[in-house]
Amino acid sequence: MIVVMKIGATQEHLDLVCKRAEELGFTPHVIFGRERNVVGLVGIMGNREEAFRIENMDGVDKVVPISKPYKLASREVKQEPSVVDVCGVKFGAKDVVVIAGPCSVEGERQIVMVAEQVKAAGARMLRGGAFKPRTSPYAFQGLGEEGLKLLAKAREATGLPIVTEVVNPADIELVYKYADMFQVGARNIQNFALLTLLGQAKKPVLLKRGMSTTIDEFLMATEYILSEGNRDVVLCERGIRTFETSTRNTLDISCVPVVKAKSHLPIIVDPSHAAGHSGYVPALSKAAIAVGADGLLIEVHPEPERAMSDGAQSLTPNQFISLMGELRAVAIAVGRYM
Amino acid sequence: MIVVMKIGATQEHLDLVCKRAEELGFTPHVIFGRERNVVGLVGIMGNREEAFRIENMDGVDKVVPISKPYKLASREVKQEPSVVDVCGVKFGAKDVVVIAGPCSVEGERQIVMVAEQVKAAGARMLRGGAFKPRTSPYAFQGLGEEGLKLLAKAREATGLPIVTEVVNPADIELVYKYADMFQVGARNIQNFALLTLLGQAKKPVLLKRGMSTTIDEFLMATEYILSEGNRDVVLCERGIRTFETSTRNTLDISCVPVVKAKSHLPIIVDPSHAAGHSGYVPALSKAAIAVGADGLLIEVHPEPERAMSDGAQSLTPNQFISLMGELRAVAIAVGRYM
Amino acid sequence: MIVVMKIGATQEHLDLVCKRAEELGFTPHVIFGRERNVVGLVGIMGNREEAFRIENMDGVDKVVPISKPYKLASREVKQEPSVVDVCGVKFGAKDVVVIAGPCSVEGERQIVMVAEQVKAAGARMLRGGAFKPRTSPYAFQGLGEEGLKLLAKAREATGLPIVTEVVNPADIELVYKYADMFQVGARNIQNFALLTLLGQAKKPVLLKRGMSTTIDEFLMATEYILSEGNRDVVLCERGIRTFETSTRNTLDISCVPVVKAKSHLPIIVDPSHAAGHSGYVPALSKAAIAVGADGLLIEVHPEPERAMSDGAQSLTPNQFISLMGELRAVAIAVGRYM
Amino acid sequence: MIVVMKIGATQEHLDLVCKRAEELGFTPHVIFGRERNVVGLVGIMGNREEAFRIENMDGVDKVVPISKPYKLASREVKQEPSVVDVCGVKFGAKDVVVIAGPCSVEGERQIVMVAEQVKAAGARMLRGGAFKPRTSPYAFQGLGEEGLKLLAKAREATGLPIVTEVVNPADIELVYKYADMFQVGARNIQNFALLTLLGQAKKPVLLKRGMSTTIDEFLMATEYILSEGNRDVVLCERGIRTFETSTRNTLDISCVPVVKAKSHLPIIVDPSHAAGHSGYVPALSKAAIAVGADGLLIEVHPEPERAMSDGAQSLTPNQFISLMGELRAVAIAVGRYM
Repeated sequence: MIVVMKIGATQEHLDLVCKRAEELGFTPHVIFGRERNVVGLVGIMGNREEAFRIENMDGVDKVVPISKPYKLASREVKQEPSVVDVCGVKFGAKDVVVIAGPCSVEGERQIVMVAEQVKAAGARMLRGGAFKPRTSPYAFQGLGEEGLKLLAKAREATGLPIVTEVVNPADIELVYKYADMFQVGARNIQNFALLTLLGQAKKPVLLKRGMSTTIDEFLMATEYILSEGNRDVVLCERGIRTFETSTRNTLDISCVPVVKAKSHLPIIVDPSHAAGHSGYVPALSKAAIAVGADGLLIEVHPEPERAMSDGAQSLTPNQFISLMGELRAVAIAVGRYM
Repeated sequence: MIVVMKIGATQEHLDLVCKRAEELGFTPHVIFGRERNVVGLVGIMGNREEAFRIENMDGVDKVVPISKPYKLASREVKQEPSVVDVCGVKFGAKDVVVIAGPCSVEGERQIVMVAEQVKAAGARMLRGGAFKPRTSPYAFQGLGEEGLKLLAKAREATGLPIVTEVVNPADIELVYKYADMFQVGARNIQNFALLTLLGQAKKPVLLKRGMSTTIDEFLMATEYILSEGNRDVVLCERGIRTFETSTRNTLDISCVPVVKAKSHLPIIVDPSHAAGHSGYVPALSKAAIAVGADGLLIEVHPEPERAMSDGAQSLTPNQFISLMGELRAVAIAVGRYM
Repeated sequence: MIVVMKIGATQEHLDLVCKRAEELGFTPHVIFGRERNVVGLVGIMGNREEAFRIENMDGVDKVVPISKPYKLASREVKQEPSVVDVCGVKFGAKDVVVIAGPCSVEGERQIVMVAEQVKAAGARMLRGGAFKPRTSPYAFQGLGEEGLKLLAKAREATGLPIVTEVVNPADIELVYKYADMFQVGARNIQNFALLTLLGQAKKPVLLKRGMSTTIDEFLMATEYILSEGNRDVVLCERGIRTFETSTRNTLDISCVPVVKAKSHLPIIVDPSHAAGHSGYVPALSKAAIAVGADGLLIEVHPEPERAMSDGAQSLTPNQFISLMGELRAVAIAVGRYM
Repeated sequence: MIVVMKIGATQEHLDLVCKRAEELGFTPHVIFGRERNVVGLVGIMGNREEAFRIENMDGVDKVVPISKPYKLASREVKQEPSVVDVCGVKFGAKDVVVIAGPCSVEGERQIVMVAEQVKAAGARMLRGGAFKPRTSPYAFQGLGEEGLKLLAKAREATGLPIVTEVVNPADIELVYKYADMFQVGARNIQNFALLTLLGQAKKPVLLKRGMSTTIDEFLMATEYILSEGNRDVVLCERGIRTFETSTRNTLDISCVPVVKAKSHLPIIVDPSHAAGHSGYVPALSKAAIAVGADGLLIEVHPEPERAMSDGAQSLTPNQFISLMGELRAVAIAVGRYM
């Protein structure tokens, strides 16, 4: 931590800051500047939060943190990239992994048919929502356990591992029985009760960035899972909220190289939720692979016009097949497989 | 809903849109324009979401919603303002209600002392966190049930009703035993499992706006509670996330008159979390009362420099006393009591 | 400046950073931390920008600035608040100054009539646009010099000093002939050619915050004017762009106390452009005075339904009269006059 | 335009709205809904702005625009993509065009050397700033005409056409003498005096998106140039301002497919200003080509550590050479040349 003193702060102010820093377990180092002085606080990380209390002291302008707030997710702590294995599908290795499927599981015919179609096109995992957090209580909320059973049938039929969202900590056990990978949705990125329990679960987690979550906070959220012992976390960039309304969210494509620079964890991209319109999904999918993402999460529905949720952003199976061919070319161009 | 056709869309496109609208239960009305045509869809509200599927059809430019997505919270449905009563303290009536207390309950002496001090200064309710959702798993997470017991002791000592946050749906029963009002924090504004259960609980709810929640979404979130039968909801504006970093969040002061225009529910303001610096709390508190807020939620700590969380934004009891006098003058100037 | 080294940076990296810092004219002070080292750079302000080049060096994590980038606007440099005098109207003194008038000057009858009405209600200055920067080239762009002449007539009729926008550096001379105060609109906050010339002009400047300008950048923009010798700058908060769409912009009410803490310059608030709807203007005006603003800039039009620009956000003269009475009560409650 | 009436608006309200609409030159069409009524206004585009005045009338909830505010830039008006030719370099054709060079022209040796290096690596045009709009008046502001002359020397030496920024309308004539393409910087996207004059100039314009400009406003800004007769406009996405601070701006990669869907104009991407750190430039450049951009604008400096501006985001010539090879592979993968 660096304590920046105000211009005109007195020696007494400075002495009191140093004294308080020592009480908090830091060793203070004063640098006397031309305009103002600063105090470097050397100490262990645990005191980070307490150091901010110094900001209220007389003569102090601000406290600037130096250490990163996350540890286990940091590339400074673990330099080699992590590979997360979901029933043999590897995230963070040379392959770009495409997960595809409908927003919601709506029925057996729908989910099994889509699973077969996306598998044939080259998808490696199946997605589908059984518990849907919806902005309106009057909207379709998902089939619940029935949806999970249908996902399991689709897995039987195709061999594709399944990822599905868990919303309520009370449902973790139930979802665990059916899913191969838990998905945490954007709205739950700071549902710490849920994250902590998933940290104790024995299955990989796909963690979606919240729509107003900074990348530092995104990595902090993984810390809740990692610090409980579950190291199998895959991040997912899915767009952030900005002033721009042409797309549902603004895909923060830079999130991928930034996460790669700061963390060892794999990261994939969800172009469907970012765009909100299926017409933009192919271009954004190519951008995601080119920028270095380890995979994609794409919504595919047999009849988007009749989807019970997010129809506007779902590809048809035919559109998906044709996109997959284009994606392979981009993957190869950046030295990946698909 | 209004379906806007593209310039150059054919009569066939238009016919297919009308046909699909009828299948979805709407009566379509075509308006032939100079540049392009539009189709007005008349129908009941339940079909709203399905209508968006039309957006993917050929010849369609976009679908524009007309109805508001919330019902029970709407002033169009209930014109007279609602008053929410918490053990005799009335939100939404002529009085401006000040809730004060520390961010976290840290010990008996701390919470009882603060309760007495804020009561003496004119606060009408006590706040204090027992379950703290923190961005870092390494930060203080609250005292849990022990904290709730200490809050109850402070209530016994002062008679002030207490409001405290509930984070996990599994804790609702526990918090119910001690609290007079549930608080839902900004991070849980879209934790629909939690909101639904609170809608079934028999105590009032203080619902804080999420940091990237639009006002329409804020009112939609209340709908989860109201539609389950609990009509005692008080909203709380606490700042939104923007590009500005001088304050912790950007207090959206306009939220108060906008909510008053759109809804019958009471709304209060939390200047402490918005500012993030205690120095700005007095000015923002005055602005909140002047703009028409029904109350304030202010952090007060006996020794902010030693607070276990949010010390930088807490007032001292003396600062709070002096502020309360200034607030009374503003309340009277805008025709309220305090 | 503080140079934060990476965890694992070598002594050689550190030595090279110190050597480069000395070349740039700084004296480096190394603080050896537990996790990583930091280097404090002591030196004069002019080298600030160059120091960022160090960020690209091996072993460097980031460079953190410590000094504020603005000087003449800073309260650290000039502690007592500045008072800006426009023909006897004082901004930054005990009085809250209300400037009122239409968005655009549309005709003699309109502007003279409004001037008389707002004067009678207590406004101290008249606003009115002759050069209108419009998002669409197809929208009304103002009457130009003819508009300036009409403003001058309204001044003759009422004695109210006038403020009007200047958009193009080439028009400064022309506007100077008629106006008592130049207005720089939100779109020109970084039109440095314009700001520099206004710094050389001999009339006060009302500088509106840009819609994505941070408060630090806002103060930096004043530096362009102040450093050329013109010290008569009044700031104006008018809303920033965020994700919220209920209001035209999000009024950043905290900007007022933040500017008061960081700078000695007066600041007023424009609730009309922030709200975008006249219905919210009264509440926001009261909030602005309560938060400590030195004045208000309010749009008033004799017939808002027929205004050539911004009709939706303009008050009628009657609404303005009734608002002024309410504002006086708030001003007195916070120890100001009006 | 669609006028949405309030629930509970009377027939009289409705009649008055229809009457006013007719006065404004529209033909009103009422649709009677279950909850509320709406009025479709059919008319020519010029009345668009005036229609918003209806929003203030009794019984009106809001006015929703249907037509797009821009015309000449719209793909609905001109379906085939435009190709902009700058001395033989074609934007919007099959080739992906890379423009490279330093942020500022600093001296003859610097600019000529860089020009030769980037040409050898495959760049098709040279960039370099002679007039630099800087947030701080104390920062390097560019060499002015001397810089333009040095750019011309670099063109002579290499044959690369040059693009350089013009900031002040008064400098257009001067810049015209030296440059092959005008650049309008992000801060001037709403400097309408500048845009209008460039619309009358006889050279192509590279228009950078402002940091808080929506895509609709971006296209509106082109309308100022196009409507004056200059049809040679190339757009440039360079990142928008959001809450995320890991990168200097948030590259809105979706802007490319959105502009391609809405407009016929070519669009390129500036990954350097978006990232703010040279380390992220390669990944973002690949993403830009993959998403469908017609070109790139990349900062290259012979010694980034010694650059007078933006050193942190500049590539070295060697980094640029190696990047160009990688970019070619991506361009081919998406069916383009380079």
